[in-house]
Amino acid sequence: MNWDTVFAERTSEMKRSTVREILKLTAKPEVISFAGGLPAPELFPIERIREATDTILSERGAEVLQYSTTEGMPELRQLIAKRLSKGKFNISPENILITSGSQQGVDLIARILLDERDRVIVENPTYVGMLSSWKPYHLHFSPVPTDNNGMDVQAIEPLLKDKHKLIYSIPTFQNPQGTTLTLERRQKLAQVLVDNDLLYVEDDPYGELRYSGDPVPTVLQTEAELRNATDVTGNVIYCGTYSKVLTPGLRIGWIAAAFPIIDKLVQAKQATDLHTSTLNQFISYEVARDEEFLTSHIEQLRNVYRQRRDLMLETMTANFPQEVTWTKPEGGLFLMVTMPAKLNAAEILVKALEQNVAFVPCDAFFIGDMGHNTFRLNFSNARPEMIVEGIKRLGAVLKVAMKE
Amino acid sequence: MNWDTVFAERTSEMKRSTVREILKLTAKPEVISFAGGLPAPELFPIERIREATDTILSERGAEVLQYSTTEGMPELRQLIAKRLSKGKFNISPENILITSGSQQGVDLIARILLDERDRVIVENPTYVGMLSSWKPYHLHFSPVPTDNNGMDVQAIEPLLKDKHKLIYSIPTFQNPQGTTLTLERRQKLAQVLVDNDLLYVEDDPYGELRYSGDPVPTVLQTEAELRNATDVTGNVIYCGTYSKVLTPGLRIGWIAAAFPIIDKLVQAKQATDLHTSTLNQFISYEVARDEEFLTSHIEQLRNVYRQRRDLMLETMTANFPQEVTWTKPEGGLFLMVTMPAKLNAAEILVKALEQNVAFVPCDAFFIGDMGHNTFRLNFSNARPEMIVEGIKRLGAVLKVAMKE
Repeated sequence: MNWDTVFAERTSEMKRSTVREILKLTAKPEVISFAGGLPAPELFPIERIREATDTILSERGAEVLQYSTTEGMPELRQLIAKRLSKGKFNISPENILITSGSQQGVDLIARILLDERDRVIVENPTYVGMLSSWKPYHLHFSPVPTDNNGMDVQAIEPLLKDKHKLIYSIPTFQNPQGTTLTLERRQKLAQVLVDNDLLYVEDDPYGELRYSGDPVPTVLQTEAELRNATDVTGNVIYCGTYSKVLTPGLRIGWIAAAFPIIDKLVQAKQATDLHTSTLNQFISYEVARDEEFLTSHIEQLRNVYRQRRDLMLETMTANFPQEVTWTKPEGGLFLMVTMPAKLNAAEILVKALEQNVAFVPCDAFFIGDMGHNTFRLNFSNARPEMIVEGIKRLGAVLKVAMKE
Repeated sequence: MNWDTVFAERTSEMKRSTVREILKLTAKPEVISFAGGLPAPELFPIERIREATDTILSERGAEVLQYSTTEGMPELRQLIAKRLSKGKFNISPENILITSGSQQGVDLIARILLDERDRVIVENPTYVGMLSSWKPYHLHFSPVPTDNNGMDVQAIEPLLKDKHKLIYSIPTFQNPQGTTLTLERRQKLAQVLVDNDLLYVEDDPYGELRYSGDPVPTVLQTEAELRNATDVTGNVIYCGTYSKVLTPGLRIGWIAAAFPIIDKLVQAKQATDLHTSTLNQFISYEVARDEEFLTSHIEQLRNVYRQRRDLMLETMTANFPQEVTWTKPEGGLFLMVTMPAKLNAAEILVKALEQNVAFVPCDAFFIGDMGHNTFRLNFSNARPEMIVEGIKRLGAVLKVAMKE
């Protein structure tokens, strides 16, 4: 077999994810890794999950180990719908599809909506996992610049002289920058969507993890309020997940959207993997339905991650060269570092790995040939003493590089 | 939003699965369902799974709830590779990718291999879940007739005057017919693959469930033997699953293939859902690594399903009209019924549901406008007394229909 000619044309756009390949290098215990988007495993509610699983398997074993519906466990869909509903803004369980993590949500959305060569608007830089999933469709990505207030929404309208299929972004504690779209910009974005009858994919894995600043409503809610609607019948397709607030290993995410979208997504998901693990849906439901627990657990995550973020920022200020800048996120898992243009993050990574420190270069997150001088740091996974040690080592690497 | 115009062109080929929609109708407890491909839930090794999960979460909770590699848990890949290896035919863990059920395997294979309008050879009828996944690529399906010995392999070569991308079939206890490709035909098929350098997808969810007749080697093994090879570097891509021998609710399947195929599949899977549930991989490993248990558990499944198959066949012989025929499978979960051409299975289903009996009409499994007089019966899920009662009712419905 000639393996060079056997693959579909679209595989030319498939690459092993840089992030996940770097993660493999960092499996060695001596490496201090700021590379992954990993939650802190010492905060996983293991005992809760163990008890819930034990109860479920004892009481409903035959049911939770059997095939189940593509849409997902009804009680879990209801629970998620209820948590997304705020005041008069109300989401029905019929508007929820359970997915195998929010990555699958992003992937299924492309499958039902995107034709080859469609135009899609994205913030720049944008989430590299979306690019991995969507690039095989040979899209035209129209980049919108970002600043500390998120995507520059005013830069969207001029792009609309060409027909675009949708806008995708992570408006809250973005990956890789950690920045958040302000309320004012959310309202402007909602107006753009309504005025132009344009779809928007709100990818929101980190929204619950705010450590400082004022909460902002989801774009899903903002757009509904603008239309004076009380339900989700609008132009926003919302992707959420338990990966960051419970655990990622269960792979439980969801999509909230208008029913015609959910209906097609169900058909696409049936063909993709029939349904998400029945057991893991039951476990997630059993743990998350205790609202008091979930609230206090998220509060604990916020406290720990806030400390780690602050510690990382302080240590960076004390140890990084003056010419290097970085974002100051109000939540999430990441911040992004920008070095002077002469420095290349991939080359710095090689030197950092020699010091057993890892991060993710951000060029793959950018549309266009740019971002070579940027990299992403995760502050949720490493323990405080490792954050200090790792950032000091990285500071030393950067200082040497600045002098070369 | 005008929902009629917003979807990608490929969604015109997406439909809700007939099988899964019928399954919803049959959720009522009074319905005797022969519709799903459901294993018998009373045979699930619930207690084993409960104990394994408890151990895993107690001992390695932080690890099994965290993100993991796309390829899958190394120990599980090794276990599966070992079980697939026979004698000098040896499969390495590097040739295994863990998937979220074998449906995801089938779906990912299309994603990396099939371009729009590619030609693909399939047995006729073929697995409807493959058709759901692959039809959106707008393929040309070249059907090969089947008989009680499986696909008519001699009918393949004349098709090869046109360039075909691959052959897909379920050679062992096929869905929907339950029939098995004979050893002689497997050897001929392997020869066709080697002679024409053609890829073959062996979908094998039921292979372990043999109740009578002589075991046959997988096509994977047959093709390797023909090439006198001892490893998987050939033209066969093999999809397996624990859904039928352990439980489907965990969604753990695998692909075994040459490394260039696995390599691309890993890239596609990264983009699709990052990885399969870490917890469920660990549970499957913990349960399946006890070979003695697995062997005796499969033996138990075989004994129970053999009785149910025999009971269904006997009751059909006693109660179905003479003009109706059916397959006599040596294993698996299904048999297929053929009625006289004047009868339509969808219409019979309506009448059967009035008697609270359900099955799956097979027209959607066929390439071309045919099979309207055929339907599939599952014999693994219903308990013996329900099999007798359901088949009697169905026989009565068929007898009335024959007279109309």
